[in-house]
Formats: sequence, structure tokens, C-alpha cells
Amino acid sequence: MTANFRSDNETPVAPAMMGAIVEANRGTASAYAEDNWSGRLDQAFSKLFRTEAVVIPVSTGTVANAIALATVTPPWGSVYCHQSAHIQNDESGAPEFFGNGLRLAPVAGEMGKLKLDSLAQSLLATQGHGVHSYLPSALSLTQSTESGTIYTAREIRRLCKFAHAHDMKTHMDGARFANAVASLGCHPAKITCEAGIDMLSFGASKNGCMAAEALVIFKQPQWRETAERLRKRSGHLLSKMRYVSAQLLAYIENDRWLAMATHANRQAAKFAQAVQAHPQASLEFPVQANEVFVNWTDQGFTLLESKHILFQRWPGRNDLARFVFGHSTTDRETELLIHAL
Amino acid sequence: MTANFRSDNETPVAPAMMGAIVEANRGTASAYAEDNWSGRLDQAFSKLFRTEAVVIPVSTGTVANAIALATVTPPWGSVYCHQSAHIQNDESGAPEFFGNGLRLAPVAGEMGKLKLDSLAQSLLATQGHGVHSYLPSALSLTQSTESGTIYTAREIRRLCKFAHAHDMKTHMDGARFANAVASLGCHPAKITCEAGIDMLSFGASKNGCMAAEALVIFKQPQWRETAERLRKRSGHLLSKMRYVSAQLLAYIENDRWLAMATHANRQAAKFAQAVQAHPQASLEFPVQANEVFVNWTDQGFTLLESKHILFQRWPGRNDLARFVFGHSTTDRETELLIHAL
Amino acid sequence: MTANFRSDNETPVAPAMMGAIVEANRGTASAYAEDNWSGRLDQAFSKLFRTEAVVIPVSTGTVANAIALATVTPPWGSVYCHQSAHIQNDESGAPEFFGNGLRLAPVAGEMGKLKLDSLAQSLLATQGHGVHSYLPSALSLTQSTESGTIYTAREIRRLCKFAHAHDMKTHMDGARFANAVASLGCHPAKITCEAGIDMLSFGASKNGCMAAEALVIFKQPQWRETAERLRKRSGHLLSKMRYVSAQLLAYIENDRWLAMATHANRQAAKFAQAVQAHPQASLEFPVQANEVFVNWTDQGFTLLESKHILFQRWPGRNDLARFVFGHSTTDRETELLIHAL
Amino acid sequence: MTANFRSDNETPVAPAMMGAIVEANRGTASAYAEDNWSGRLDQAFSKLFRTEAVVIPVSTGTVANAIALATVTPPWGSVYCHQSAHIQNDESGAPEFFGNGLRLAPVAGEMGKLKLDSLAQSLLATQGHGVHSYLPSALSLTQSTESGTIYTAREIRRLCKFAHAHDMKTHMDGARFANAVASLGCHPAKITCEAGIDMLSFGASKNGCMAAEALVIFKQPQWRETAERLRKRSGHLLSKMRYVSAQLLAYIENDRWLAMATHANRQAAKFAQAVQAHPQASLEFPVQANEVFVNWTDQGFTLLESKHILFQRWPGRNDLARFVFGHSTTDRETELLIHAL
Repeated sequence: MTANFRSDNETPVAPAMMGAIVEANRGTASAYAEDNWSGRLDQAFSKLFRTEAVVIPVSTGTVANAIALATVTPPWGSVYCHQSAHIQNDESGAPEFFGNGLRLAPVAGEMGKLKLDSLAQSLLATQGHGVHSYLPSALSLTQSTESGTIYTAREIRRLCKFAHAHDMKTHMDGARFANAVASLGCHPAKITCEAGIDMLSFGASKNGCMAAEALVIFKQPQWRETAERLRKRSGHLLSKMRYVSAQLLAYIENDRWLAMATHANRQAAKFAQAVQAHPQASLEFPVQANEVFVNWTDQGFTLLESKHILFQRWPGRNDLARFVFGHSTTDRETELLIHAL
Repeated sequence: MTANFRSDNETPVAPAMMGAIVEANRGTASAYAEDNWSGRLDQAFSKLFRTEAVVIPVSTGTVANAIALATVTPPWGSVYCHQSAHIQNDESGAPEFFGNGLRLAPVAGEMGKLKLDSLAQSLLATQGHGVHSYLPSALSLTQSTESGTIYTAREIRRLCKFAHAHDMKTHMDGARFANAVASLGCHPAKITCEAGIDMLSFGASKNGCMAAEALVIFKQPQWRETAERLRKRSGHLLSKMRYVSAQLLAYIENDRWLAMATHANRQAAKFAQAVQAHPQASLEFPVQANEVFVNWTDQGFTLLESKHILFQRWPGRNDLARFVFGHSTTDRETELLIHAL
Repeated sequence: MTANFRSDNETPVAPAMMGAIVEANRGTASAYAEDNWSGRLDQAFSKLFRTEAVVIPVSTGTVANAIALATVTPPWGSVYCHQSAHIQNDESGAPEFFGNGLRLAPVAGEMGKLKLDSLAQSLLATQGHGVHSYLPSALSLTQSTESGTIYTAREIRRLCKFAHAHDMKTHMDGARFANAVASLGCHPAKITCEAGIDMLSFGASKNGCMAAEALVIFKQPQWRETAERLRKRSGHLLSKMRYVSAQLLAYIENDRWLAMATHANRQAAKFAQAVQAHPQASLEFPVQANEVFVNWTDQGFTLLESKHILFQRWPGRNDLARFVFGHSTTDRETELLIHAL
Repeated sequence: MTANFRSDNETPVAPAMMGAIVEANRGTASAYAEDNWSGRLDQAFSKLFRTEAVVIPVSTGTVANAIALATVTPPWGSVYCHQSAHIQNDESGAPEFFGNGLRLAPVAGEMGKLKLDSLAQSLLATQGHGVHSYLPSALSLTQSTESGTIYTAREIRRLCKFAHAHDMKTHMDGARFANAVASLGCHPAKITCEAGIDMLSFGASKNGCMAAEALVIFKQPQWRETAERLRKRSGHLLSKMRYVSAQLLAYIENDRWLAMATHANRQAAKFAQAVQAHPQASLEFPVQANEVFVNWTDQGFTLLESKHILFQRWPGRNDLARFVFGHSTTDRETELLIHAL
């Protein structure tokens, strides 16, 4: 038997979302997001975040991030982010493409988190002399981070306040937003709109959906037109958007999204405990969401692999591997992993 | 009861394709098109077109078109197409966006078809003096056309031969390719690779799939890298691509795609016959696929609308309307329409 | 002896402008347009056009046009222009490049002039259905036109009024603006800012300068930042801008620009008269500025060429040629041409 | 009396180059770089660098750099450079603009110099996983560096060898190339084409020209077309290019460029000696070309400023200032500065 901890990207669609797709598949429906499912998104997310929200349904997190950043950043503007951010390392320059040559300004920071001091320092170093320099235009935070850690509401508030004070807009890449909210146990608004986040890439595909993400714009309805133009122009306005929107509605209904993320986090926590109890293995980062980065020996990892446990060896580091737990990870799979360890 | 003839974009997913999606939803699978379904596409389409084919699965026809054109056209290159082409009128500049400012050169032509003479004339008029002009780089044909007509294999061969003789690559926008093949009753290779088409946007969403299209590159495997880079960079590399690829495989399996298109064409033919028999209404274009453009009085159309028949009034023309028939159009709906007429 | 009527682009720099360059070449001066010459441009042109003007000095007409259009047009916006416009045919897509894939919408029109009716019709045909279409964003007129004809103040006012009523900004490509003003004998403001033109590419290189053009923005000082960012980012912010600005100041000083254009126009008029008196040759367009388009026989033109008269045979037309008269064309050269004819 | 050491960008045009401009100003000449001066550049630079060279004359170093990098880097390609490079900090994203969203990958390094180790490490860290990452495409070195230091021929050879081994092309930003050659006393080919440099931005404006730079492409004549298309499309193909090319020819004739750079370097060396002899001031970097970075007290610098000595205080550092010496710096000005110190 195989157990797969490589990525929550590899999980199947959860039954409730598959049910919503099948349910939406009745008769004809208006094309290009003019259907009844898409038409309900603004209200549903406004309620979820208890503020005015504009929702742009799309198929991938990359396009949600790219549209968000290009909406608020001119071609000569720069976007500050952590140096491990997905937009910096894993999107093949989608922000630069959508933003017509905007620039990312990566900032170092421990445990995947961007610190206010480093941001301030970086801003000082990279901004500069009028038209010769890029114009600092946006800050993008990842929640939960690429290291599986989580920003507190207070940290986000301080970073957003700084950004706004320097005329930058704020974006959160929430590919694993559900895991962060489940972990913090707070209201989702607390770490987004109420903390100063202007736009959220609300991830769903990693946590039970098929290819569904929501770009949520808070309190800035005038950004809708640019975002929608970018969606169309990049080929992301699906003719049959109803299937994406139906998933998103089902996903947030009855707190399904949090239940699935809670499940995934719990599996990760169990494994993290086992790692900590292990004589040789240790945790690279505190485990706060659904990702566990393990320090161990090359031989140890090789042995695990021989037992049909799938996980990701870290590029360039033979003593480090990542284990991701998803909505579909079973107790038995986690136990299998712990036992194999 | 309502009957909807507005667009095949509004049809639901056909049972076989929904079945394929559900079928693919078992356990984990490698992300980013490295799954087993995506891995079978090249072979399946190479067999379908009886030549070496590279397949890039994507979610929309717009992105298939844009990637195809940007793969073979430099930013200072131009793409010749019919003035009614979807890339010219309905994609918000996606080709220009993916192609970093390439230019479309629209050519007039009756019945939605580009004629060799007009193409030659347009080429002469727009190309020109070295670096001052755009460089003619590609020809894009739409099959079936935006007027619901169809190019013959011979017409395509002649146009492609001309294009290649002038150092241009050739692309076919096949959003309704199935309807064309079903109508011509020929082998699909006859009007594509064997007629000189280098790249085909093989449409499937309008004809029974959810959000699945295949960019098919014939005999030019070296274009794969650019096409894949463009797909990733534009946010179109789905993490869970298996669901798109599973649809595409089911779609071409057992000639399902042709069966569905044949059904749609037949409904259109029935309606066309009724229009021709009508004392006041007439056909704007010959009906060769699944679209019927009807000339009639404003009052006539208004009456139809009052009977809950949905169709598209043509922008700027109150004597013209379009009726589209899809894989899910029932005999009863078509009869309802004919009767209402 | 050779006489050159190929293009005013081939003329030398006029003595007054060369003098200004030499005069500016004293000691050091602040770089990047922060010198004293550049600093005087806004005021000088505000006075010339008797309204508030922001001036962006650059080296070519192409970049002046491209910056102007990109300043007011989003990537999904379109720019309406005459089908013979320089931006459409001779700039290798500079507007598309600076505007990140904006689209030009060329409109037909006799004698190089865009008519209100055709513009209205074209707008109706190309604009359309929300995010699927390009957004009409700007109108660009060429004065004097590519056919050597001239718009009247009234024609410009009507076109600009229409454009503004449709939320479009207005631009004038004034590569030969001096010739138009000299011909009309009106105040330059009458056919620009006072007629509704928002931005003028004020040409100077063809009429006595070395590589100096002024992008003049009327009454919209808030567009300065975008224009200056685009200038820098495209490599057009010369470190030693003083030499460009010094030319521009000398050019408009004492109405030098008009004197030189008047001279060129007069030479053209003399030749036009001779053509009209000729038994076989005739004028393709009315001669209103410094360009003369002559219909004649292939043999006639060949004979002229054999007499070392340089002019431009029209691409694709062996019965048409263009003769351009410049600030440096001498009476004797014009007589030589007339005599040779 | 004022003495200006702010930047060599602020110097006037040297008499020989002004003479060449005046000399070129005789009669008409073919436009758009088809004149006799431009036509001689390839041969003149091929001789200078004793290899086959294609020369693209332009007006600024920024456009020379941007065209060079965009010619060899796809939109999803990255360019490695020192973190203090002009392309990274001072060109407002021109490389990103011309390269349609390519990415710069800045690398740290002491004294403005990029070290092989750091480059290798950065390459490892930023390249990565197929289409998800940017594709390493070019290496850009600055000679002399932004710190006024100089790469040896051996250092350049090693860096270029590494780059080529990793499928990257090599570019040298030679805004102050003359100062480097003058300092090293070597043949210019030794530190460019013969060391593995594929393209050189051969700077001239800072060292006696008006607005003239040469993009020199070594042994890759097939890159000419792309470079020329980019020049035209960006508005940099001057109609009266003869004045730029005439300057470039005069600049390299009789080793004028080296004589002027030698003069500037000598002034810098004199001042550097005085700084070293000073009890409180010191040099931030070794002085190898025409720039001197001085560590001193804030009061010291303020005192200098009060004596009408112009220089550049370093942004964010009140203990650091830059003094640049140019072709027009007189012995007397340097003595004035030394005395004031």
C-alpha cells in the first residue's frame, strides 16, 4: 500500500464538492460567469468575511495571485514578498507577465515569515530615486507560509499598516488559507480584511476542490473592472464558470472548508509529535498548519521511500523533506507513516 | 417551458464526460499534468490524427488560441485572420497579451471565410518595409467559422500552402471543430495536419466537456517547451489537470465527439429547413454546422422571445439572430422552436 | 547634381538649431532632464499654446506617439486612427509595445483623413460586449496627414467632441505639425488644445532639428508621471537631455518653426503647380503642406530618376510617387525638379 | 567657482565629437541608419575588437542594455547580475519591459564585483523545477563596476565560461568601458569577445559623446534582426542616425576614447591619493577607474559642499559620497577639490 504526502495538490476532489458539480450540471446556464452560482459569490463571501467583497472565481492560485497584483501595481511598480513566496519561486513569472514587467522584491525572513524590520530595510534599499527606480506598490503575504508557519493577526496588522503608510496595497496568497484559519481558530476576517488585507487569493483546490479559487477583493469594488479584464484577457473566464462557482459555494457552506483543513492540520500535528519523539529526526519549522518539514538522515528518508511512502525531498538538501497532509489523508495513512518512521 | 439556443457554451456537461471526471476522482495523482491521464494525451491524439502530435491540455479555447499564436509569432509579428474571428472580436486581446503586443491583421471575406485572394492582397498592403512594419508570422483559420460555415479540405490546403510559402505558420481555431468534421464526414486529419495546419485548438467545452480544450501541435515537438512555459506563466497549468485530461480522453474515445456534433448539426439542419420553408424568414449564411443565422423581422424575433425561446439577437442588427444547437439540444426543443417560428 | 525629395527625414539640422546645440555645450549640466533648458520647456510651450502644458522632450516621433497613447490607454483599450497612420504602418508596433498589447483600430478615409461617420461606424463595429471586446480609449489624428492633407480646426473639433463623448482621449501625431499650422495660417492652439486635443506629438526633427520632439500634454498635469515613467523605462530619458531641450527652445523661438515650414510648403506648392500644368502627370491628393503625391507613368518616373532626382516610388504602385520638400530644400533644387519633369 | 564631480553624465560633449556632428551636417543623408556613417560602424568596431562585430547605434546605455538582454532572454528567462548593477537599480525596469517580463536575479558581491561562487550558489537557489521556475538565460557584468572597480580578464573569462556551460549568454554593461580599458592597459578584445562576452554595451555618452552608445554583438550576426526590431519598436531608430554614428566613429578614431578615459582616471587617482593621505577620510573601494567613493564625516562633506564642490551623497549613508571624474575635468578642478578636502 502506498501513502502519499507529497502535496495537497495531489489530493482528489472531496465528495461534497463533486456533489456540487454534479448538482450544477442540470440544463443550460448563462455562460461567462453570468450564471446563478457565480452571481451568488459576492454575497456569500461578503457574509463570510462580514464586509463588502467582490469575488472573481478562477481556476488556479497562480492566476488569482497574478490578477490581484497586476490590478494594483503599474508595470514600473514593485511587489514586496518573502523570498520563499510561491509568486517568487513557483509561478514562472506570472505576476511579471500579468503586470507587464512589474518586479518582485523578495525579502529574507526566518520560518517563511516576513518581518517588519526586514521589509522596512528592503524598502529603503530598493526604492529610491524617482523614475529611475521601481515604485513600491504592493505587499504580498503568504498564509499559511511556504514553511507551514502562520502569521498572527497582530503581525499581519502591523505589516499592512506599514504597507499602507507607504502607499502600497496588500495581498494575501491564501493557497492554504483554510489551514491557517483552522489553526488560529479565529474568524477569517480577523487575519484578512480586518487586519488590513486588501485582496485575498482564497485557495480551495488544495483543500477539496477541483480547480477553484476565489480572488476576494475587500472594500474596493472599483478594482473589479481591471480584475475582470485581466481574467478575460488571460483566458481565464471559463464559458462554463458555473462549475467553479458551485464548488466555491459548497466549499464555504456549513464551514466545510474549515472542517477539511482541521482534519489535515490534525494529521500533520500527529506526525509532528512523532517526529519530535524520534531520536534522530527533528522539525525544521514549527508545525502550525498541514505541512511538516523534517530534518533527518538521507538513509532515513531512503528507507521511508522503500516503504512506498511518498513525500518531497527538498531540492539541494538531502537532510530535509516535506510531508503534506490533506483533506483526504486518512488516519491509517498517517499511522502508516508514523510507524514507518 | 424554455428552450435555449443562445450558445453551445451554455450546455451542460455530457454524461460520458461527467462520468470520466468522477472516474478520475480516485485517490491521489501527480500534480501539474504529470498524472496518468495527461500522460496519455499525446498518444491518443497522435492516433486520432494519424501523425505525431503534442497535446497541451487547457481550460479554455481562448488560452489554446493565445498560446498557439504566441508560440510561433514574435512581438513584432502579425497574425492574419478573418475579420469575424473569435481571436479578433471576442478574446479581449488575449493573443496580443500572450504575444507581447503581436498584431492581428483582420481580412474581410464572405460567409465568415477567408479567401486566398483577399489574404494575398492584405499581405501585400500590410507587410512592407523592413523593421518599420510587422512581420507576417501566422495565419489563423476558424473551423467551423463564426458564420457557421465550413472550409473544405481543398480551401484549407491552398491557404496553408500560401501561408507556408510566405514563412507563416498555420493555426486552426477549432472551437467547433467537431461540428466541421461531422459535417464534412472526412477524417479529422484531412482538414488539419494533412492540409497544412501546424496547430489546432481542438475545442471540447462547447460540445460536452466542462472546461477542457486541447492545443494540438502537429509534427513540431520542439514547440512544446514554449507552449508549456506560456501555459504555466499564464496560470493555466492546473494542479489537478487529471480532470481535464480525463475528459479529453473520454471525449475522443469511441468517436463520442463526433456523435455529439452530428446530433447538434442535425438539429440545426432541421431548423434551417424550417426557416427556408418560412414565407418571411431566410438564412443569412448556408447552414453547414450547428449554427443558424436567421434573417427575419424584429417583430418575428420578439414574438419568439415571448414564447420563452432563447437565442441571440445580433448586435447592431434587428433583423438578424443566431440560433445554436448543442449536444444536449433535444428533438423536442428543436420542434418547439420550429413550431414557434 | 543630385536633388533629394525622398523625405524630410533626410534633411540636415538647420543652422539655428545646430547653434543652440553648440551654445548648450558649455560646462557641466544636471543630467536626466533636470538641466536649465529642459526646465524651461513647460513654460515655453504653455506660452506657445496659451494654456497649461506639460512637455516631455524625447528623441523620436515614434516614442512621443507611443508614450502618449500608452499613458491614456489600458492594455485592453483600443486606439482609433486612420488606416494610413504612421502608428499603424510605420512604427513596428511601438504603441502596442508601450501599451502592453493595446490595439489600434484603423479606420478608412479618403485623402488620409478620418471622417466622423466612419469613426462612428467603426466604433459601433469593434466595441462591443463588455470584457470580451477592447475598450475604446483614444483617438489619434495625424496633422498634416500621411497624404499631405490637412484637417481644418472645425473637423478636429467635431472629431474630438465625438471622442470625448465616448470616453476616449485625443492625440495628435504632429510629425509635420509645423507644416499644417503654416498652411492654415492659424494659431497652433486653434487646431490642438482649443479644438479638444489632449496630447500632441510636436514634431521637430523633420523640420530642422537633429533628434528632438516634444510630447505636449494639455491641461492634464496628472499624466506627467506616467509619461515620465514610460520615457525612462523605454530608455528615452537621455542623460544629456539639455541638447534636445535646447533645440526645442530654439525651434519655437521667434517662430523659426513656422518660417521653416512655410518655406517647405512653398516649395511643394511650386512643384504642385507644375504637376498640374503637366499634360500627363497629376496630383493624387490636394497639396496642402509639404508633400506632393504625383500620378504619372512608370517611364516618366524612371526618366526623373535618371536625372539624379531622388524621390519615393510608392510601394505596390508604379504610377505613384511621393516628393517631400523640407526646410533645406533650395529654390534651385525645386526648379531643377520642375525642369526635369 | 564651482567644480562638479557629481557624475560624468553631466559633462559636456568633447570638441572632437562636436566637430564630427557639425561635419556630418552637410546636405541630405539616408534616414533610419541607412546613412554612410552608420554603414561604417560594423567594420570600424570589427577592427577595434579584431573579430566580427554587429553594431547597433543607440542613444542611451539603458536601451543598449535592454535590447541586448531581451535579444537573448525569453520572457520566462532570468538574467544574473550584481545586486548593485545599473540594470537592477537605475533603469526603471527597462530590461523587464523590453524582455516582456524577464526577471533579473541579483547576486551579492564585495566591491561591486560578482564572484563565481556566489553566482553558482544563486543559480542553484533560483533555478529549479522545470516550467515553474525562470530559465537562467544570461549573465550581465558591469565594467567598470558601479563601485568603480574593475574585473580582470581572467575573472571575466571564468565567469563567462561558467555562464556558457549553463546555457547562458553573456553581456557586459560598459557604460564606463573606456575607463576600464584605460586602467587595465589591455586590448579591448581581451576583456570582451576574447574573454567570452557575447554582447557589449559600449558606452560613449559619459566619456565625451552627446547621446551615443553602441550595442556591439560579437560573432553572432544572426542576433542582428531581433536587436534591430527591438530598436525600432522601442522608438530608438532615429531618422537622423547619422549624427549618432558620426560621433561613435570619431570617438574610437585615433584612440580618442582611451585618451579621454585615461585623463579622467588620472584625475580620480590624484584625488584618491589625497583621500588616502587624509587623517580622517578613507576610500570605500579601491580606485581603479574614474570614480572615488569616500568615507568621511557628515560635517566634512557639508564643509566641502559649502565650498561649491558638487558631488553625490550616497542615499541612506551620511558617511559616504561619490566623486566622479570626467573627460572634461580640469587639473585645476581636481586641485580645487583636493585643496578643499
